[in-house]
Amino acid sequence: MNDRPALPDAFDMAPVGLIESDFPDKFGIPRQPGLADAARASLVLLPPFDDPLTVRGLEAFSHLWLTFVFHQSPERWTPLVRPPRLGGNARVGVFASRSTHRPNRLGLSLVELVDIDTAHGVRLNLRGADLVSGTPVLDLKPYLPWAESRPEARAGFAPEAPPTLAVALSPAAEAELTRRDDGESLRALIRQVLAQDPRPAYRRGAEERVYGVRLRDVDVRFQARTDARGETRLEVIEIAPA
Amino acid sequence: MNDRPALPDAFDMAPVGLIESDFPDKFGIPRQPGLADAARASLVLLPPFDDPLTVRGLEAFSHLWLTFVFHQSPERWTPLVRPPRLGGNARVGVFASRSTHRPNRLGLSLVELVDIDTAHGVRLNLRGADLVSGTPVLDLKPYLPWAESRPEARAGFAPEAPPTLAVALSPAAEAELTRRDDGESLRALIRQVLAQDPRPAYRRGAEERVYGVRLRDVDVRFQARTDARGETRLEVIEIAPA
Repeated sequence: MNDRPALPDAFDMAPVGLIESDFPDKFGIPRQPGLADAARASLVLLPPFDDPLTVRGLEAFSHLWLTFVFHQSPERWTPLVRPPRLGGNARVGVFASRSTHRPNRLGLSLVELVDIDTAHGVRLNLRGADLVSGTPVLDLKPYLPWAESRPEARAGFAPEAPPTLAVALSPAAEAELTRRDDGESLRALIRQVLAQDPRPAYRRGAEERVYGVRLRDVDVRFQARTDARGETRLEVIEIAPA
Repeated sequence: MNDRPALPDAFDMAPVGLIESDFPDKFGIPRQPGLADAARASLVLLPPFDDPLTVRGLEAFSHLWLTFVFHQSPERWTPLVRPPRLGGNARVGVFASRSTHRPNRLGLSLVELVDIDTAHGVRLNLRGADLVSGTPVLDLKPYLPWAESRPEARAGFAPEAPPTLAVALSPAAEAELTRRDDGESLRALIRQVLAQDPRPAYRRGAEERVYGVRLRDVDVRFQARTDARGETRLEVIEIAPA
């Protein structure tokens, strides 16, 4: 490589678009894409990338890769992290994890492409995205199943989808959903998000605590309960304006 | 998002490592990973990312995502590109393609992790990589088959692996392979690379032309031939020092 110019110390990456999603905050976002397909999200391309020509032909693909920046994560990183899948106690290398606290803060999500709206600029409507609203996206690429679908791959400490919890809604929460035009899809979203157990791993014993997760324009307040068989479920106490 | 600081116009991304591979040049590199598993490649982490702790636990995963920069591609991009899969004539949007000529020049490759050498810094030995030697890598992540293997995905104009060509080697080329210690693996690599037909799509008619592809330390010179049934094969004429 002696005949090549030296590599730059860093590459400047400009966002090509921004995410608008049902997740105004990081807390509660499923830890991998595809786990909450009731979540609405769009990728809105920014000038000069918002020319409809840039996405010509993309509608023939069902799934997309998004490469994005975990812009709300700190820029500092450490060699070891504590993945929630290991209960928040065991530590693994940052590059053996999908932690958001990583060098370059790069994220990678496989999402479904629902449709493309080019009436004003370019808006890609997505399903299954796990991205906080406002996330800057650096690239999008079509998914190639013949190259990228490897069902036989070994996946260490994350060999399968995380287990889910049962979710219950209080009468007050149900009443609030009944009042809303988007009640049905919000109910599905709440169930999918809470089933993933968004509580911090190291606090999962503290059942009296009430947590709040922001979804769309509401704050969903929930608590853990243990049933007669000793199984934990999460119960939505209240759905309040955020 | 009004309570958030404004997004920066660009994000600075520092390479966390560099690729060393059997591909000293861009020409001839398979257009997707996994198509030439005889290709040797390593990812060598750079300081301060070369602490063995950063990859602790990664050996339990069989496949990795690499996010990297197509550093030899021009920084300019156009809204439409001509993918080789469409014969180099039809144009699609740059974001509907995996073209290297794209905004931010970001690449994404799924590779197999063979082993990890931490004797001096961190070297990840890979299989199936489609990366030119010297490629700067911005991130690596474990592959999660339960989230990322979607065999049912529709893939538009690239619904399956590209067709392959038959490859023949001249007696002179075979003799050169016999002289080399790595003759067997180099033969496999040459066959896999040429089977992908590295010729530019728009020139595939010009059969008299001799092409050269650099693999490891040699220049593999080849030509297209048409057999009695009208089928094209690529014939290696000569394997010469690069």
